[in-house]
Amino acid sequence: MARQILGAPLAQALSEQLGQKCKSLQCCGINPKLVIVRFGEQPGDIAYERGIIKTFRPIGIEVETIALPPDAPVEELLSTFRTLSKDSGVHGILPMRPFPRQIDDALARNAIPPEKDMDGVCDASLTGLFTGIQTGYAPCTAQACMALLEQENVPLDGCRATVVGRSLVIGKPVGMLLMQKNATVTYAHSHTRDLASVTRDADVLIVAAGKRGLVGREHVSPSQIVLDVGMHYDEHGNLTGDVRYDEVFDVVAAITPTRGGVGAVTSCILASHVVESAEKSLS
Amino acid sequence: MARQILGAPLAQALSEQLGQKCKSLQCCGINPKLVIVRFGEQPGDIAYERGIIKTFRPIGIEVETIALPPDAPVEELLSTFRTLSKDSGVHGILPMRPFPRQIDDALARNAIPPEKDMDGVCDASLTGLFTGIQTGYAPCTAQACMALLEQENVPLDGCRATVVGRSLVIGKPVGMLLMQKNATVTYAHSHTRDLASVTRDADVLIVAAGKRGLVGREHVSPSQIVLDVGMHYDEHGNLTGDVRYDEVFDVVAAITPTRGGVGAVTSCILASHVVESAEKSLS
Repeated sequence: MARQILGAPLAQALSEQLGQKCKSLQCCGINPKLVIVRFGEQPGDIAYERGIIKTFRPIGIEVETIALPPDAPVEELLSTFRTLSKDSGVHGILPMRPFPRQIDDALARNAIPPEKDMDGVCDASLTGLFTGIQTGYAPCTAQACMALLEQENVPLDGCRATVVGRSLVIGKPVGMLLMQKNATVTYAHSHTRDLASVTRDADVLIVAAGKRGLVGREHVSPSQIVLDVGMHYDEHGNLTGDVRYDEVFDVVAAITPTRGGVGAVTSCILASHVVESAEKSLS
Repeated sequence: MARQILGAPLAQALSEQLGQKCKSLQCCGINPKLVIVRFGEQPGDIAYERGIIKTFRPIGIEVETIALPPDAPVEELLSTFRTLSKDSGVHGILPMRPFPRQIDDALARNAIPPEKDMDGVCDASLTGLFTGIQTGYAPCTAQACMALLEQENVPLDGCRATVVGRSLVIGKPVGMLLMQKNATVTYAHSHTRDLASVTRDADVLIVAAGKRGLVGREHVSPSQIVLDVGMHYDEHGNLTGDVRYDEVFDVVAAITPTRGGVGAVTSCILASHVVESAEKSLS
């Protein structure tokens, strides 16, 4: 029987720390503030936004949303980012992605300055991950994985860590963060041959393939720590992950559930970025 | 008995192609030109420079060297890069690194614009590798490894490729290039536990640890392709690599020798970058 790795205790502890910091900042006349920029009213975006507001309110971080028309041209988005970049009352910018079709993703991402890029989407933030010289912030989900591993006291130095998935949102960044902690990192992905033999060798397995139920009993081994980043709804409307949780649970040493696992920490990490940015505005 | 992977045939073929391109460019009034920037007269730098000139002369690429005083301040280096960046007669800049102590490496690297950054040292070039969206050029040695694998028709898609070493000069970049070809990439390094078991699993093994004789018989397995990027002189003045070549040769399927292997291709890749940059100046 595995240990469940739950996000709630970490989220709660983080939330309290950040609440204290917010109070100090407010004494200095600074109100930490995040601006979410989205196109239209996509249900996924709205749900994510609600989750953020729910996390941020008790901490004391202000959240403002700018909803552009779904067909707004790229110039409108760029000008929005420019205005927010200059506004000293705004400490962080979070774009909801993927952007609609008319938007050039790279052009838009790079219009956010790294010091306000709360989810590590611009090239300067990503370069910091690759070079190991921090510029801006890491993508929140990748950092949430690292925070959970730290909470669990997983010895990363020299361990074998396998990341399934190579997206810029989570896979590649979390691999670089693991390497900063001196893990031996393997990137597996949709072209990997005999995925099960690759994943079984890992001490730490992070599954971020975006493919429902990809990883099952045959992919895991005892004493493994498994973090499941995937989030999907099955045909009955139940939330499921990239890992077939029920199959894997009695094999591995510890695993995150889909609900209450990595996702429960991500918006707290986002909050910590906003507070850090606000603190930097002090000096 | 392994097959030797030699750089000479590839270097020769590349050199001929590039020579043709140079002739065409010269007909259009463009003389491809590289400027090497170094500090003082380090023997290693001078040897590298000689190798470049020897490769570039028959191709028809001009090489100029700017030798700054060993104690030149960073401002002098930055102003040199600025002048070269603006000079339309200069198609590529190659700084000899590591820079002396008084130079801030990141500041200096990033003063080279990606379009003239022939060895992929600036952040914009490195970001291109990490995101997979090409900006500038890949580091020459990393690209030389890829060119040799292509020459050998090594099927990279889905294969297990292990890179020993995680430097920004070769390890991390070559891993990203391998991932672009859909290999399953493992980064091993000085903190890796049981290195031999990690390296034995690989179909393609690239050793770029900068540690003489690190990899021996116990680290390899049959049917492996091994590229040895290391270059060291032993106590008798003999050139040796990161791999104990004699031990490994009769185990693996194919391996590069230290002399005449990866190194024999690198300066041709550098030449290809200069010619590409010159071609871009046409349009």
